Amino acid sequence: MSERTSTVTETERLARAALSRIAEPGHPTLTDAVHQLGGATVLGDLQRQAADRALGEDLADRIATADPLKELERAASKGVRFVVPGDTEWPSALDGLVTAPHLHERGGVPIGLWCRGPLQLDEAVEHAVAVVGSRSATTYGGAVAGDIAAVLARESWTVVSGAAFGIDQSAHRGALGQRGPTVAVLACGADRAYPTAHRSLIDYIAGVGLVVSEAAPGCAPTRIRFLARNRLIAGLSRGTVVVEAAVRSGALNTASWTAGLGRPVMGVPGPVTSAPSAGVHQLIRARDALLVTSGEEVLEAVGPMGLFLLPEPREPERPRDRLDPVQRQVLDAVPLHQAVESRSIARTAGIAHARTREALVVLHRAGLVVHALGLWRQLEPET
Amino acid sequence: MSERTSTVTETERLARAALSRIAEPGHPTLTDAVHQLGGATVLGDLQRQAADRALGEDLADRIATADPLKELERAASKGVRFVVPGDTEWPSALDGLVTAPHLHERGGVPIGLWCRGPLQLDEAVEHAVAVVGSRSATTYGGAVAGDIAAVLARESWTVVSGAAFGIDQSAHRGALGQRGPTVAVLACGADRAYPTAHRSLIDYIAGVGLVVSEAAPGCAPTRIRFLARNRLIAGLSRGTVVVEAAVRSGALNTASWTAGLGRPVMGVPGPVTSAPSAGVHQLIRARDALLVTSGEEVLEAVGPMGLFLLPEPREPERPRDRLDPVQRQVLDAVPLHQAVESRSIARTAGIAHARTREALVVLHRAGLVVHALGLWRQLEPET
Repeated sequence: MSERTSTVTETERLARAALSRIAEPGHPTLTDAVHQLGGATVLGDLQRQAADRALGEDLADRIATADPLKELERAASKGVRFVVPGDTEWPSALDGLVTAPHLHERGGVPIGLWCRGPLQLDEAVEHAVAVVGSRSATTYGGAVAGDIAAVLARESWTVVSGAAFGIDQSAHRGALGQRGPTVAVLACGADRAYPTAHRSLIDYIAGVGLVVSEAAPGCAPTRIRFLARNRLIAGLSRGTVVVEAAVRSGALNTASWTAGLGRPVMGVPGPVTSAPSAGVHQLIRARDALLVTSGEEVLEAVGPMGLFLLPEPREPERPRDRLDPVQRQVLDAVPLHQAVESRSIARTAGIAHARTREALVVLHRAGLVVHALGLWRQLEPET
Repeated sequence: MSERTSTVTETERLARAALSRIAEPGHPTLTDAVHQLGGATVLGDLQRQAADRALGEDLADRIATADPLKELERAASKGVRFVVPGDTEWPSALDGLVTAPHLHERGGVPIGLWCRGPLQLDEAVEHAVAVVGSRSATTYGGAVAGDIAAVLARESWTVVSGAAFGIDQSAHRGALGQRGPTVAVLACGADRAYPTAHRSLIDYIAGVGLVVSEAAPGCAPTRIRFLARNRLIAGLSRGTVVVEAAVRSGALNTASWTAGLGRPVMGVPGPVTSAPSAGVHQLIRARDALLVTSGEEVLEAVGPMGLFLLPEPREPERPRDRLDPVQRQVLDAVPLHQAVESRSIARTAGIAHARTREALVVLHRAGLVVHALGLWRQLEPET
């Protein structure tokens, strides 16, 4: 733990734990209310409404039976801690999450996050990039996601993803392969594993990195929990890389959250014949995403200004670049597939015959022209 | 021939034919002078300078021996005609070509164009798109270039390219396969073939389309003739599609001419692991090119405003879209991989148990939930 101390009262923490169990992740009205009034006030209000029978029976029932202290103890027994705003671990990056009901069904600053793993959440996401994409990824997409994650990890950037099949798991594994930090944000409880086939991957991440969920422990994944989760992946990252995404894809939902936060959305292109790349191509076409081809280009886009500036892609120096102007003029006058006399070359170049001959000798030595039977020609067009 | 009549005098045509033989294609000073003063004036001036021994011996020699009448006759015997500004066939699209010495070694409106083939140049390029790219194309790039050209051809658009190996030839063949118009712009004389392996392709295009060159008949290809040729491909087209291009590529030269003309540059992405796509990715990254994935998207970019507007890429309708709000809310509350009782679903959804059961039956019929032993679960996450 950091030397700083949490400013959160026990009452507030317990109220938020209760609310986290009562309400669905990213409930727009509730997250807004808690963000503005605090968890204790909102919970008290709900309890009053329940007593007045102003709430549905089920909700009232859930409020009545909530036992946040036991909840936190049970979570702790599974290695899960509950992090709330005001805790030293709470990442300020999340404060940008607001509700946008016209855009998203979910929204708002989370009431709290259930975390499992040795990393401190705020430190882990200080320099973090989301790498997300299709669950039906191709071998190509998986390889590129892994490569990008590995480059990020080598530069000590955290790779945030959703532990799903396909791109997500390649991203986590790419980071883990470099012993880099990685954060898996789940739609189910942080103590569970979805997909279940990724139980060992998720437990491994919980052992060296961090598993995070807005849903209370034990929760199963549902569609709205996935939508709420996507906004968290965006919120915890400085930018989002979409590696492969079909036209309708959760990764595009994450991308739109990232754009809403004013952070860079990046897309990795692929063959236009590959359906899993279609969503990414659409993003780039619409100028909603920057095309990236490598981890270095990702770092250039998300890193502190100027820190990861890539050298301008330089054209390789060619033998032609080392010639003087006369030699270049002569070279330009040597035909490509028809051998001619030096006198004809001199004429085309508009350069005296003697100087043309001198230049041809240099060009021949440089391997730029071929000479046989008194005739000269170039090897290959360069343009 | 059109019913309109050429406004070009015989003197002017002969002067331009002489200049076309004397000077290299796209010579910036000369094209500028001829564009402003006319060919006859410029040739007369050069002849005076030659008589005054103010020109180099070779150039003076070439001016003295020029025989444009014989030149035109010899060209005609090979099926090649010389088209100059003022001819009915002259395409106005070329008038935008100006010299930009800081950008290009070549430039200006051509002195004249040597044409071989049945199409009228102005009509052929009224609706034309350049499809260009790497000579070292991949199978993928060739296939995509051919597909794009075929779509253009089916809409009666002309495919302009350079008849080179790789992308160029795939583009021509894609158009020819649809019996569509295609124009090959060469760096050698219009009577010749470069690469020589494309002799039959080029002759075939001359039989049904058009082979065009700024270089006089008989000329061999040289580097500067390739550069001059690239500007013509851009000048004759409403936009340029780059399919594959390494970082240093003539196709990028064509793209920069297209951009200079204020016409759309389009790029087809490919795997980031493929070197021939690197130049295209760079163009798109720099926002110098629009990402395109199909001939339809190309037409949308170059066609008359609104004519080829593509429908917004629509997400396929899913069973979920046909549900009413209550049914959706219930569906969202059904866990994904864990089967639960309907009462638990009702609680999560916040909907009365009886109504939840009704909704579950509908969802079950729609194949959205699985029901066994009194427990319910969803099939797959949709996000």
